[in-house]
Amino acid sequence: MMDRFDVVGIGNALVDILAKVEDGFLEENRVEKGVMTLIDTARAAELYAKMGPATEISGGSGANTIAGLARLGSRAAYVGKVKDDQLGRIFAHDLRAQGAHYETPMAKGDHDCETGRCMVLVSPDGERSMNTYLGVSEYLSPSDIDDGLMARSDWLYLEGYRFDGPDSHEAFARAIQACRRGGGRSSVTLSDPFCVDRHRDAFRRMIRDDLDLLFANEHEIMSLYRTATLEGALEACAAEVRFAAVTIGPGGAWVIQDGALSHVPTEPIEPVDATGAGDLFAAAFLHGLVQGRSAETCARMGCIAAAEIISHIGARPQVGLKELLASHGL
Amino acid sequence: MMDRFDVVGIGNALVDILAKVEDGFLEENRVEKGVMTLIDTARAAELYAKMGPATEISGGSGANTIAGLARLGSRAAYVGKVKDDQLGRIFAHDLRAQGAHYETPMAKGDHDCETGRCMVLVSPDGERSMNTYLGVSEYLSPSDIDDGLMARSDWLYLEGYRFDGPDSHEAFARAIQACRRGGGRSSVTLSDPFCVDRHRDAFRRMIRDDLDLLFANEHEIMSLYRTATLEGALEACAAEVRFAAVTIGPGGAWVIQDGALSHVPTEPIEPVDATGAGDLFAAAFLHGLVQGRSAETCARMGCIAAAEIISHIGARPQVGLKELLASHGL
Repeated sequence: MMDRFDVVGIGNALVDILAKVEDGFLEENRVEKGVMTLIDTARAAELYAKMGPATEISGGSGANTIAGLARLGSRAAYVGKVKDDQLGRIFAHDLRAQGAHYETPMAKGDHDCETGRCMVLVSPDGERSMNTYLGVSEYLSPSDIDDGLMARSDWLYLEGYRFDGPDSHEAFARAIQACRRGGGRSSVTLSDPFCVDRHRDAFRRMIRDDLDLLFANEHEIMSLYRTATLEGALEACAAEVRFAAVTIGPGGAWVIQDGALSHVPTEPIEPVDATGAGDLFAAAFLHGLVQGRSAETCARMGCIAAAEIISHIGARPQVGLKELLASHGL
Repeated sequence: MMDRFDVVGIGNALVDILAKVEDGFLEENRVEKGVMTLIDTARAAELYAKMGPATEISGGSGANTIAGLARLGSRAAYVGKVKDDQLGRIFAHDLRAQGAHYETPMAKGDHDCETGRCMVLVSPDGERSMNTYLGVSEYLSPSDIDDGLMARSDWLYLEGYRFDGPDSHEAFARAIQACRRGGGRSSVTLSDPFCVDRHRDAFRRMIRDDLDLLFANEHEIMSLYRTATLEGALEACAAEVRFAAVTIGPGGAWVIQDGALSHVPTEPIEPVDATGAGDLFAAAFLHGLVQGRSAETCARMGCIAAAEIISHIGARPQVGLKELLASHGL
């Protein structure tokens, strides 16, 4: 008998290249602060040549969430494409070593690019500006979706960023169907306000018609519903979506469930590196759902995990998340 | 006119793969705690498969020292061999981005191995156990020594570890001669007690006859002179070596100069990761010499830099070392 999984995630398989920078560096090099910008090979080479000494840590938004779930003790699996190169082997090692199932076949020489990477420039205020060279992660196609794996998973978690790929809408649709046939439910994270901008209609349709849970932050949800205020976006979301979790940075999170809104605060923390805060919120939230917790409790768990991740460099958890939640009585 | 350098270093060019482990992991996997063990490809693959999620940071003992010197504002250059692969390009980037000169030609397909790496297992007490797969760094040969670069450097800094390579004694001899012809002086760090054990006679001869400065820690110097006590080793060293700096962990450092011994204390610190403590001691010590400071002041500077490096994960400095020394009035 094959293993069942609590959550299977699909996303861009990337290695993060993290460096601290002054804000002046962002201006000089025309890097937009606080968001994710897709860059090509030439820009990646230019920016890397200019940036300071760095640290490499496996990343990728959806993979961070899956790593977090595995760390928390959920049975977690991941689908995302790396090349069979040094960075690809590092990515695969780190995810498996965390306890996640990861068997997406590595690209060999079939695409003229390497494993994807994200140059994460961390400002003194802890904000991160991400410059992503997608590499082979862009080529995830419907044929990479293992229907059996999807059908054996209780939750599917889709990374909005992957919507930027040519075949990915189709791959997502296939994954959602396969998961549903197995009795599972599906969720998506919007990933980034500009990503939402690029795919607004497709996102709204998918969220309304095919998904069971939406993750977003305040900027993303305002972009999705084209509202000037968070309140407007929450209202629009509640009218259209049954179940959503919206993070609002130091303000905590909002939960929308069957038309009702509830707010969960978070404890203040000095941010060192915001990379991965949303990813780990989603990890702990989904872990709570898997454990049968209430949505509000899930949101509390999410806020605690997000606070841990912003207290250090890198988007993968450094402490025992399970023990951290236990110390909060969760 | 070509640039002059304050210090040129020669060593194993490695990328560190750092992970936290429990001491039980070391026992189960027969990893000797606190020392550097050379491992082959098969053992590297075995250990990597077993170790947890990791962080990659450019390392290499001598390269850490050169990176520290560049960070402090010295004109620093490095010689060490990587392959033209992803980890090799990461190593080269990080060193150059720190401001060091690094132009050793990258190995292409001429050796059947990749850029070297060091799996650094960090115990809860901050001690690090290093497992080094040398890769192409082992093949540094006399032909990689640029005599002109050596002659344009005021100090040569040799990494003892490199003595393990087949052609490296010869490469070291060539570098020392070229540096001396240019009016420069030469130093070595013993690197590791077992490394000393493998090359004791060659080390003693080189230190006595060809070098101007010796760096060692207490274990290494006791191994070099085969003494049971630190006091015995310091005496033996003072009888044979004009100038030496010996670190003794939380006890600070001893300076030997023209037969006289003096002790420099260090401030107590909670160690997070001891990787690179000796490397950064040497960096700040040499930086002090370049600035014309007394040997005791150099040792104080070394202790402060070492304390910074053990307060976080990774062997490359994270704060402005210059500002740190300035805050101590140095």
